[in-house]
Amino acid sequence: MQTLVELIAKKRDGGSLSTEQIHRLIRAFGAGELADYQMTALCMAIFFRGMSDEETVALTQAMLHSGDVIDLSDVPGAKVDKHSTGGVGDKVSLCLAPLVAACGVPVPMVSGRGLGHTGGTLDKLEAIPGFNVSLDVDAFRRIVRDVGVCMIGQTARIAPADKRIYALRDVTATVESIPLIVASILSKKLAEGIDGLVLDVKVGRGAFMKTEDRARELAEALVRVGTAAGKRVVALLTDMTGPLGATIGNALETREAIDVLRGTGPDDLIECTLALGAEMLILGQVANSEMDAREKLRAAISSGRGARVFERMIEAQGGDPGVVENPSRLPEAPAHVVVHAAQEGFVAAIDCLELGLTAVAMGAGRTRADQPVDHAVGIEVLAPRGTKVAAGQGLARLHVRTHAAGEAIMPRVQKAFRIAHAAETPAPLVLGRIG
Amino acid sequence: MQTLVELIAKKRDGGSLSTEQIHRLIRAFGAGELADYQMTALCMAIFFRGMSDEETVALTQAMLHSGDVIDLSDVPGAKVDKHSTGGVGDKVSLCLAPLVAACGVPVPMVSGRGLGHTGGTLDKLEAIPGFNVSLDVDAFRRIVRDVGVCMIGQTARIAPADKRIYALRDVTATVESIPLIVASILSKKLAEGIDGLVLDVKVGRGAFMKTEDRARELAEALVRVGTAAGKRVVALLTDMTGPLGATIGNALETREAIDVLRGTGPDDLIECTLALGAEMLILGQVANSEMDAREKLRAAISSGRGARVFERMIEAQGGDPGVVENPSRLPEAPAHVVVHAAQEGFVAAIDCLELGLTAVAMGAGRTRADQPVDHAVGIEVLAPRGTKVAAGQGLARLHVRTHAAGEAIMPRVQKAFRIAHAAETPAPLVLGRIG
Repeated sequence: MQTLVELIAKKRDGGSLSTEQIHRLIRAFGAGELADYQMTALCMAIFFRGMSDEETVALTQAMLHSGDVIDLSDVPGAKVDKHSTGGVGDKVSLCLAPLVAACGVPVPMVSGRGLGHTGGTLDKLEAIPGFNVSLDVDAFRRIVRDVGVCMIGQTARIAPADKRIYALRDVTATVESIPLIVASILSKKLAEGIDGLVLDVKVGRGAFMKTEDRARELAEALVRVGTAAGKRVVALLTDMTGPLGATIGNALETREAIDVLRGTGPDDLIECTLALGAEMLILGQVANSEMDAREKLRAAISSGRGARVFERMIEAQGGDPGVVENPSRLPEAPAHVVVHAAQEGFVAAIDCLELGLTAVAMGAGRTRADQPVDHAVGIEVLAPRGTKVAAGQGLARLHVRTHAAGEAIMPRVQKAFRIAHAAETPAPLVLGRIG
Repeated sequence: MQTLVELIAKKRDGGSLSTEQIHRLIRAFGAGELADYQMTALCMAIFFRGMSDEETVALTQAMLHSGDVIDLSDVPGAKVDKHSTGGVGDKVSLCLAPLVAACGVPVPMVSGRGLGHTGGTLDKLEAIPGFNVSLDVDAFRRIVRDVGVCMIGQTARIAPADKRIYALRDVTATVESIPLIVASILSKKLAEGIDGLVLDVKVGRGAFMKTEDRARELAEALVRVGTAAGKRVVALLTDMTGPLGATIGNALETREAIDVLRGTGPDDLIECTLALGAEMLILGQVANSEMDAREKLRAAISSGRGARVFERMIEAQGGDPGVVENPSRLPEAPAHVVVHAAQEGFVAAIDCLELGLTAVAMGAGRTRADQPVDHAVGIEVLAPRGTKVAAGQGLARLHVRTHAAGEAIMPRVQKAFRIAHAAETPAPLVLGRIG
């Protein structure tokens, strides 16, 4: 039998690791026989040599089985979840999951926190007073069964090998490897006990994948490997050159997601919700076409059933369900500062990476995993892309702790808006579909 | 300023690290700010991307200055050392260093221990009763000045960054990287306070570099980088398809090196000693041609001056100098077993990798750095390459603890000798010279 070092050398030299060898490596890592410094060398070798789909499936399964797989077999129907690769203003999960559940597809969702310029679903949920994302598996299972949807954070028992490997990749320049990204995403999602998964692979300046080619490569790998692992998987490529919706910041985004459930909300956010939701309904076998699915989702909005499911989920998770009818019960920042246009013209582009980083600097996000966030602060876009603005017209409203704090970041936000002489046609929201 | 992770990413993406950035990485590693798991990811990135000579010089200097550089400025003359990349039966240092010192070139030699199938100079020296390789720098400097030569092990203060990095590379499949090998070798050798260095880059099955191309690549990089670091450096490529000399095992090899000092010893070992010694005398500026240098070395043998220097060095390092006149004072194994030829013919090849591994299994070497070695055991080749043997004639004598131990390994040693119908011309010992 080859030593663990020989297995690292095999990958280094471009060889394929067998399923058994990959399971051995991950087991040894769990048992402390493969040290952190060996895992990072292996990750760097994988960065350079890649992995076949078969190897990526094996890595996914090995990381998945380093922990518990939630058993949802007593929840009737096909369970379907959504995962986004992360963006700026991406609050889709908050409106999408209750809507899909309201249409009869159970959604067991394990989400993450914001890091860097991208926000996280857990932080947005925690803007709701009392909301608890740290439930145990039994409570999670019960709420999925009774309400149709539950949204929690990754427990220590979900794919612990992935958790450790991800932390190492983050500090060793080995994040940007498609097989490692695929195995990391899928091992966590497969642990939820799902039957189907819809992936929202974001493309553009505010996304992890900056180009459509690279995003498509990731989306195709996710679909191939997820399918090979026995799940129904579909991916959409969606635009992330500007922020999604009109708000960045936790309570602001939660409020905007509630708007969607209540039949208002910005067009791009509604479209993203419907496009992803339609795929989920089809995978969940409650709709047989995209048109059928979109109708069902729209009906769940207009009837208020989506909003009622969100209220029941909030209540089941210890939060104040009154926020849905009364969003003013969400935390609000004490001061507002409006950022004005320096010249007249059309809003041609909004640099969402810059706005995301500004929001972090305001306290809405974090640069280290152990930082707290301020749920109330954030940025509200007043002039979305395509808007004609006069000089001095408001571009954005900053929700801040003090006026002085708002004044300090004003120039940075103003620079993030590119004003042009003529209107430009924005890119479509959904750039492609794989599955 | 870029973060350390960004520097790893830069090398990963094929960029060149500046001298300042490389010094920063090594300093951070020493200070615990760059973790082991980050260093190994960087080493794997270097494995794939390589390093320019400028980067390799910077890495060499950074590792060199992670510890002390021995100051030999009070020893008159140009100090010259030799380094071998390691082989089977390579006991050259033991006869070479005293001979060169006897010709007037001071030799400050810091050596290593055996690991894997290759032996180590320190283990061979320790076969001499009482010999102490763990001297402090003051004693080392004094003995080099007074005797002309001193041979010790790497102290904790010599290139400590290299020591830690090498231990990590050994278990992460990042040993076989030419810039990392070059920086590791040169950082330790430059710490000796030398002016010149002769490198013996071994080629063949028993060597670290299996092909001449690869060995030449390493030799050229060593010469270029060593020269760029301000030293006079020459490299010879020498054959390691069969064992060097007729013995493998510590006391046996020490005895064979003493034979050379006393004017006997096998031809290949004498030739290797003279070829390397000639380069050292020229670098040390006590000879002006190879012929001149070889004459001086031969005179040091025939006059016994080399043997006298070895005795004085042994005495200065606490050992029994009587072993030079009386090699039977070296440890001897209690049992001998002769391995016989199964058929008649010519000894066409001796698999020195297999013999090296067999010697390790006998207890003469180690598979882990913390194992003790048995100085007495080993293998004595009775029928070197080219010898005509009759069926049943002795091929090798095993020096073992028990007859049973010898019988057990007999078949393995017998298989290492390839007997052919016709004689074959062995490769020349010196395959090339770079410098």
